[in-house]
Amino acid sequence: MYISHGEKAEILTEALPYIQKYNNKIIVIKYGGSAMTDEKLKTSVMRDLVLLAQIGIKVVLVHGGGPEITETFKRMDIRSSFINGLRQTDKEAVEVVQMVLAGKVSKSLVNLIENAGGNAISLSGVDGRMFEATQISEELGYVGEISTVNTKPVLDLLNNGYIPVISSVGCDRQGNIYNINADNAASKLAQALGAYSLISMTDTKGILLNQNDESTLVREILVSETEKLISEGIVSGGMIPKIKCCADAVRNGVKQVFIIDGRVPHAIIIEVLSDEGIGTMFH
Amino acid sequence: MYISHGEKAEILTEALPYIQKYNNKIIVIKYGGSAMTDEKLKTSVMRDLVLLAQIGIKVVLVHGGGPEITETFKRMDIRSSFINGLRQTDKEAVEVVQMVLAGKVSKSLVNLIENAGGNAISLSGVDGRMFEATQISEELGYVGEISTVNTKPVLDLLNNGYIPVISSVGCDRQGNIYNINADNAASKLAQALGAYSLISMTDTKGILLNQNDESTLVREILVSETEKLISEGIVSGGMIPKIKCCADAVRNGVKQVFIIDGRVPHAIIIEVLSDEGIGTMFH
Amino acid sequence: MYISHGEKAEILTEALPYIQKYNNKIIVIKYGGSAMTDEKLKTSVMRDLVLLAQIGIKVVLVHGGGPEITETFKRMDIRSSFINGLRQTDKEAVEVVQMVLAGKVSKSLVNLIENAGGNAISLSGVDGRMFEATQISEELGYVGEISTVNTKPVLDLLNNGYIPVISSVGCDRQGNIYNINADNAASKLAQALGAYSLISMTDTKGILLNQNDESTLVREILVSETEKLISEGIVSGGMIPKIKCCADAVRNGVKQVFIIDGRVPHAIIIEVLSDEGIGTMFH
Amino acid sequence: MYISHGEKAEILTEALPYIQKYNNKIIVIKYGGSAMTDEKLKTSVMRDLVLLAQIGIKVVLVHGGGPEITETFKRMDIRSSFINGLRQTDKEAVEVVQMVLAGKVSKSLVNLIENAGGNAISLSGVDGRMFEATQISEELGYVGEISTVNTKPVLDLLNNGYIPVISSVGCDRQGNIYNINADNAASKLAQALGAYSLISMTDTKGILLNQNDESTLVREILVSETEKLISEGIVSGGMIPKIKCCADAVRNGVKQVFIIDGRVPHAIIIEVLSDEGIGTMFH
Amino acid sequence: MYISHGEKAEILTEALPYIQKYNNKIIVIKYGGSAMTDEKLKTSVMRDLVLLAQIGIKVVLVHGGGPEITETFKRMDIRSSFINGLRQTDKEAVEVVQMVLAGKVSKSLVNLIENAGGNAISLSGVDGRMFEATQISEELGYVGEISTVNTKPVLDLLNNGYIPVISSVGCDRQGNIYNINADNAASKLAQALGAYSLISMTDTKGILLNQNDESTLVREILVSETEKLISEGIVSGGMIPKIKCCADAVRNGVKQVFIIDGRVPHAIIIEVLSDEGIGTMFH
Amino acid sequence: MYISHGEKAEILTEALPYIQKYNNKIIVIKYGGSAMTDEKLKTSVMRDLVLLAQIGIKVVLVHGGGPEITETFKRMDIRSSFINGLRQTDKEAVEVVQMVLAGKVSKSLVNLIENAGGNAISLSGVDGRMFEATQISEELGYVGEISTVNTKPVLDLLNNGYIPVISSVGCDRQGNIYNINADNAASKLAQALGAYSLISMTDTKGILLNQNDESTLVREILVSETEKLISEGIVSGGMIPKIKCCADAVRNGVKQVFIIDGRVPHAIIIEVLSDEGIGTMFH
Repeated sequence: MYISHGEKAEILTEALPYIQKYNNKIIVIKYGGSAMTDEKLKTSVMRDLVLLAQIGIKVVLVHGGGPEITETFKRMDIRSSFINGLRQTDKEAVEVVQMVLAGKVSKSLVNLIENAGGNAISLSGVDGRMFEATQISEELGYVGEISTVNTKPVLDLLNNGYIPVISSVGCDRQGNIYNINADNAASKLAQALGAYSLISMTDTKGILLNQNDESTLVREILVSETEKLISEGIVSGGMIPKIKCCADAVRNGVKQVFIIDGRVPHAIIIEVLSDEGIGTMFH
Repeated sequence: MYISHGEKAEILTEALPYIQKYNNKIIVIKYGGSAMTDEKLKTSVMRDLVLLAQIGIKVVLVHGGGPEITETFKRMDIRSSFINGLRQTDKEAVEVVQMVLAGKVSKSLVNLIENAGGNAISLSGVDGRMFEATQISEELGYVGEISTVNTKPVLDLLNNGYIPVISSVGCDRQGNIYNINADNAASKLAQALGAYSLISMTDTKGILLNQNDESTLVREILVSETEKLISEGIVSGGMIPKIKCCADAVRNGVKQVFIIDGRVPHAIIIEVLSDEGIGTMFH
Repeated sequence: MYISHGEKAEILTEALPYIQKYNNKIIVIKYGGSAMTDEKLKTSVMRDLVLLAQIGIKVVLVHGGGPEITETFKRMDIRSSFINGLRQTDKEAVEVVQMVLAGKVSKSLVNLIENAGGNAISLSGVDGRMFEATQISEELGYVGEISTVNTKPVLDLLNNGYIPVISSVGCDRQGNIYNINADNAASKLAQALGAYSLISMTDTKGILLNQNDESTLVREILVSETEKLISEGIVSGGMIPKIKCCADAVRNGVKQVFIIDGRVPHAIIIEVLSDEGIGTMFH
Repeated sequence: MYISHGEKAEILTEALPYIQKYNNKIIVIKYGGSAMTDEKLKTSVMRDLVLLAQIGIKVVLVHGGGPEITETFKRMDIRSSFINGLRQTDKEAVEVVQMVLAGKVSKSLVNLIENAGGNAISLSGVDGRMFEATQISEELGYVGEISTVNTKPVLDLLNNGYIPVISSVGCDRQGNIYNINADNAASKLAQALGAYSLISMTDTKGILLNQNDESTLVREILVSETEKLISEGIVSGGMIPKIKCCADAVRNGVKQVFIIDGRVPHAIIIEVLSDEGIGTMFH
Repeated sequence: MYISHGEKAEILTEALPYIQKYNNKIIVIKYGGSAMTDEKLKTSVMRDLVLLAQIGIKVVLVHGGGPEITETFKRMDIRSSFINGLRQTDKEAVEVVQMVLAGKVSKSLVNLIENAGGNAISLSGVDGRMFEATQISEELGYVGEISTVNTKPVLDLLNNGYIPVISSVGCDRQGNIYNINADNAASKLAQALGAYSLISMTDTKGILLNQNDESTLVREILVSETEKLISEGIVSGGMIPKIKCCADAVRNGVKQVFIIDGRVPHAIIIEVLSDEGIGTMFH
Repeated sequence: MYISHGEKAEILTEALPYIQKYNNKIIVIKYGGSAMTDEKLKTSVMRDLVLLAQIGIKVVLVHGGGPEITETFKRMDIRSSFINGLRQTDKEAVEVVQMVLAGKVSKSLVNLIENAGGNAISLSGVDGRMFEATQISEELGYVGEISTVNTKPVLDLLNNGYIPVISSVGCDRQGNIYNINADNAASKLAQALGAYSLISMTDTKGILLNQNDESTLVREILVSETEKLISEGIVSGGMIPKIKCCADAVRNGVKQVFIIDGRVPHAIIIEVLSDEGIGTMFH
C-alpha cells in the first residue's frame, strides 16, 4: 500500500499524546516466545525498543531463553525434568543456564540494539548483586525466587543512557546462583523500580476465555478477577504464573500492565504509541 | 484511507534514523506565510514543533507577522511605505510593530504550543538584549540589522525545556528599538547558536527556475550558485533576502538549510523525519 | 547639598543590615501609577530594581498598564465600560490588552532594565502557562481570575539571573486569554513563589483614614482590621482590591507586605534598604 | 607467625605513600593463568581488587578464559586448532567462546567481588559496542583485533562505583562477534582509558633470560630492548604477544606497566602497595 | 622481626572489612595527652589520620593543649588557678589560650598532616562562628560551654577534602571568646555532625576499676552504668568529664564511642582497622 | 548633618555602576597600620568588608601584625633586631610570630566579621600548605619568601561563602615555618588568584613626592616610573617594598592596584564604590 509522506507525517503527529504520556517513564518489557525465536521479529523488536528509548522512554528489557537453554542442554548432554513448569536445576545446570542467558541470549540482543543505533548493556542478577534470591525448594535445586531487588545497577545504566538487557539469574550471599522465572523477575523489577508500565510478550493474543477461540480475548481484567480465572481452570500452564506476576505488579503500584501478542510485528509500539489496546490490560 | 495500527507502527519505526540524526540538535525555524495566516495550518505547525521537541530536538521558532502588522497599522491609521521590500518605520510605527509581534503573534503561538502539551516562552530581541541592532539607513527609520546576537536567553530557555518563540525586534544601547527582517534574524540566530539546521517556511514549493511552473523546483543548490540566480533575475522579491540568509547560514556553519513549502501540511515533519526532501536544500 | 565621599560611604554601610535581611529572598513588586507614567520616575524605578537584583535580592516585577491600554483603545476605536473597577472586555479587547501589556509596556521596562546594566525577560501569564485563569462573570467577558499559578517560568528566569517582568494576562486550556487585575496577579504570584515580600506601588502615601489628609496615614495595619476599613467606607475605589490582595498575601505566608507611594523617588529602595517605613505595612 | 596488632597497624601505615600515589588512578589488570584456575587464588585476587577499589583506585579487570573454553568445546564436541597461538574460530565456536567468557567466567568473578563486599558489573566488548573489531585473517575465522575502543561504558561504571569485569570479545557493525586476545584487549583498553598502570598476571616470575632459571628474572626492561628479546628467541610462545602488548602500552602513555607472577598470593597488592617490585617492569 | 611482603599484603587485605565499615563515615578524634606531647607519637598519629582520610574516612580532629598553655602562661607570667579541673580564665588569659591553641598547636598539627601528604585546615570555634558558647560561671571567667554548634565550616572542609583540625575555643555574639573543654567540644561536635564514631585519646588503658591495675580494664560499658562508676568514686579527676562526654555522645546517636590509650603507637589504626578492641567501648 | 532617606537612597543607587563593575571579582586587601590598631577603625573596616562581600564581591583579607608581635615579644622576653626592615627571626621567634598572627590577630578579625553578620574563616600559609616558602638569607633566620602559592584553600573558602582572613606565614616541606612580609603575601596571592584588584592600606595618603606635604600626593603612577621613585630616594622605608609589591601585581595581571589611606574611615568603600580615587593608583 502506498502511503504518502504527508500521511506518514500525520501518523507521526498522532503519536504525540502517547509520547508525552510515557515521557521519562520506565517501561519494563518481559521478552520471550516467538518474538525471540524468530530472527526477523527479534530484530524488529529491538528496533522498536531503540525507538522508544530515543523518544524519551526508559526501556528495561528482561528476557528468558527457554529454547536456547534446552538446545545447549541437549548439546552438553545435561538432562533436566520439569516440576510445575519449573526446570529442575542442579549446580552444573544452573551454570549452563546462566551461561546461555547472560553469555549468549543477552549479548545477541545487545548486539541488535547497538546495530539499530541504540545503546545497551546486559546485566544478570549477579551484576551489582541485582537479584538476591533464595531457593524455592530443595527438590528443584538451584531454582530461586527473588528476595531483594537492588535497583541501583539498572538506574545507573538508564541514567547513563543505556537500555539494560537483563537475564533472569539470581544469587545469594554464599555465592550460589539460581535460575529465576523471567516473568517473575520482570514483575519484581518493575515494582522495585516504580516502573510506570510492565509489558509481557507472549505467543497468544492475551488471556482467552476459550483457548481455541481468539475472539474470546479478555481486553481488560481486574486484578481481583484473576484468581477466579486460575481456580476455574480457564487459564493454564505458563499463563498462570504470567497472570500472577501481572496482578502482583498492579497491586504494587505499576500503573499500566499488559500481556501482549509478541507474534504481531511492532506489538509494543502499537500498545505504547497508539490508542489501540492489543492483548489484555490488567487494572 | 484506512491504515492499520501495524502499518502505523511501521511508519513510526521508519522515522527512527531521522530522530537519531537530529537528537539534541538545534533547529531554527523561520515561520511565516500561509502557515501562519491559516488558523488550521498554524495549529498543525505548532503541534509539529511540540512533537519535534518531545522527541529530543531543540526547536527555536522565529516569526514575522506582516499581515497582522498591516492590519493594525490600518486600524490605528498609521501609514508606511516600502523601500526595497523593507517597511519604512518611524518611532510610533516600530512600537506598533513590536506590540503586534511580541504582544499578539508570539503569544498566540505560545498559547497553541502550550495547548498541544508543549512548553513555550516568547522573547523579543529586547529580552535579555538578545538582538543588538544598528540602523540600516536614515531613510528607513527604525529598521535595523543585527550587529550582535546574545544567545544566552535562548540557550537558557532551551536548557529549561521551553520552545523559544522569537519576534524579530532588535534594540540598541540608547533604548531604541528596530524592526528586523525575520529571515535575517533567524539566520543570524542559527549561526550564533551553532544550530544544526535552519528551515525557512514560505509560500512556494522552494526556488523555482520559472515562477509559474512548479516542476522547475531546484531541489538542491550550491551556495556558490545563489548569486547568479539573483543577478540573472531568476528569483525576485522577498525570495532574494531569503536566499541570501540561507546562503549566509550555510557559509557560517549551519549544516542543513532548507526553504520549504509552508502550505503543505506537516511540511517540517516531512523534511526532518523522512528521506523526502521537499523544497530546496542549500549546501 | 554637598555630601562628602566619606558620608556617602557611611550611608552605604548603614544599608548592610537590610541587604543581609533580604539576601536571596524573593520580592514581588506591583508596579503601577505615576511611577509608571512619569518617564523619569520609570527610569529611576528600573535602576532601583537593578540595584536590588545586583546586591542579591530576587526581584519580580508585575505591572498593569491602564493608561496605555485606554490610549490604544481610543486609537483603535474600541469602547469599553467599567463594572466595579473592572474593565468589561470582549475578545478583541482582551487581545489589545495583551498586545499593549506584553508587547509594549513589558518590553519598554525590559529595555530600561537592560540599559541600567541589568538582565530582564518579560513574560505574560500565557508564557509557560504561568497564570491559568477562569472567567469572573459572563458580563465582564474576558476578565479572569487566577486559578493556578505555575511558578516554574519565574523560577527558571530568577535562577538564570534575570528580573522577570510580568504582564497580568491569564489563559485557559481552551486557548482563551483573560485580562487579570495586576494587584491580584502580584499577590497570587507572591504567595505561590513563597516570596518574602510584596510591595504594591500606588499614587497615595498609603492607607489614609481621611483621603484628604496625608497626616492620617496608617503606618501599620493588622490583616484582621482591613475588613472594617472597607465595610466602613474609609477606603474606596481601586484601594479596596489592593488592600484585599495585600491581606491575602499576609494570610498566605508573605512576610513583608507594603503599600508604598510610588511618586516618591527611590520609594522601593527606602522601603527595602532603610529603617524608614514609608507607606502602610500589613501584618 | 604471630604478628601483633601494633605491627599490623605499622604495616598499614607503611602503605600510605602507595595509596596516595595511586589515588583515583585507573589500573587495568589482565587476569589469567593459575590465579584464575586455582579457586583459592581466584577468591584472594578478587578480594585484593576490592581492597584497591575501596582505597580509591579505579580498578578495571580484563580476563581471558582459555581452560574453561577448552573444556566447554570438548563437552560440546567442538574442535579447533591453533595457528600461531591463536585459536581458529568458526561462527559456532565464537558464540561458545563468548558464552563461556561473558556468561560464566565474568559472572563468577563478579560474584566473588560482590561477596567480598565490592561492586562489580561485567561487560563484554559487545556491551555499549566497547570493542569494535576487524577480522585478523580469513584463515582464523572469527578472531579479531580491536580497531576502536569506546571507553564510555567502562568510565560510566567506574564513575558509578563499580569494578568493570571485561571479557575480551569484540563486534563489528555487521553484527559479527570476534574472539580477541585478552592481553591485547587489556593493553588497548588501558591506552584508550589513559590508565596509569597496566598489570599483566602470568604464570612465571616475569621475563626470564633463561626459562629454566628464575634467578635470570629481568626486573626492568626498556621498551626499546623488547624487540631484541623476541628476535633472539629469548622469549617465546604466549610471552611474545604479552611483551608486545606491554611495550605498546608504554609507548602510548601508560605510566606503570608490569608482568607479574599471578601464582604469588596477593601479587597485585605487593606490586601496587609496596616498594617491592615483583616481576618485570617496562619503561 | 622480618615480615615478608606476602605477609604484609595479607595484613592489608585483612583490613578490608574495617575499611568498608567506616567508608565515608565521620570519625571525630579527641586528641590529647602523651600522643600530643611526644614528638614521635605526634608525627605518627598525624600519619595515621592521613591514612584514614586517604582510604575514605572523614576524619575530624579536636585537640586541647594543656601543657603548651601552661608553658606560655609561665613565660608570660600569667597566673591561673583550677576549679574542679577547669582553668580559671580572665580576658587576657583566654586570649593567650586561643593564641596557643589556634596559633601554635593547631598549626603544628596541620603542618605534620601536610608533610604526611594529607590536606588540613585548622579552625577554632570562632571561625564561621562554629562554637557559640555561654559562660559556665562568673567565678571561672572566660570558660564556656557550647550552646550551639554550627557544622557548616567542618562540613565544607570535609567536602573539599581537608582534615579539619579544631581548637576548642568558643565565642558569643558580644565578641567574647571562651575556653572550652576539648572533650566536651569533641562530643558536641560529633553529635551535631551525626558522626559515626567518637574516639577520645587518653593516657591510660581506658576505664580501670582499679587505677593501679591495668588488668581491671573495662572493655565495654553501658551508658547506663557510667553514673555509678562516677558516684562510687571508681573513676576520678579528668576521667569524669571524659566519661560523661562519651556517654552523652552515645545517647545522642554516635554509634561507636571509645576511650583509647594514646600512648600505644597506632592506637587509632588498631581501633578502627582491626577486630582488636583496645581501651573502653561505650554503648 | 541631616540627610533625608531620599538622598540616602539616591546615594545607594549611585553606587550601582561600581557594584556591577566589581561583581563576582576577587579583591585582595592588605590590611595594616592604624586601621588595624585603632579598635573603632578596625570594627568599621570589618563591616566594610562584609558589605563588599554581601553585594557580590569576593573579598580576601591579608594582614600583618607588627605591633602585637612586638608586644608579645616584649612580654615573652624575646629580642629581635631588624635588617633592612625585615625582622631577624629565630625558631622560637617565628613560632611566636605565627601564634600571634594566626591565633590572635586573625581570630579577632574573624570575630568582628562574624559579629557584623559576615562569614569568615582564618588561614595561615600553613593551612592547606597555601604559601610554600624558602629562606631569604641565613642571617635573617626564619624569614621567607613565597615560592609557590596554592590557591585551592582560598578558592574553596570563597566558593563556600566565607571571607578568607589570612596571616602571612609560610612553610616548607621540612616542616619549617617562615615569617613572610604581608605586602608580599598579598601581592603574590592576588597574582595567583587572578584577582581583579589589590588594595594596600597604609598610614599615609599614598605616595607623596614630599613626605611632609600631603598635597604632593601622586594620584596615578605608571609601573615603569616606580623604580625611579625608589632609586632617587623619593620614597623610603616600608613604602619601598609596598611599591614594589604593587608594581609586581600590575605586571602580573592584577587590573586595579591601589595604595590607600587606612586612616580615612570607609577608605575601601570610597575606593571601590565611588568615582573618588583616594590614594595612589598603579597602572
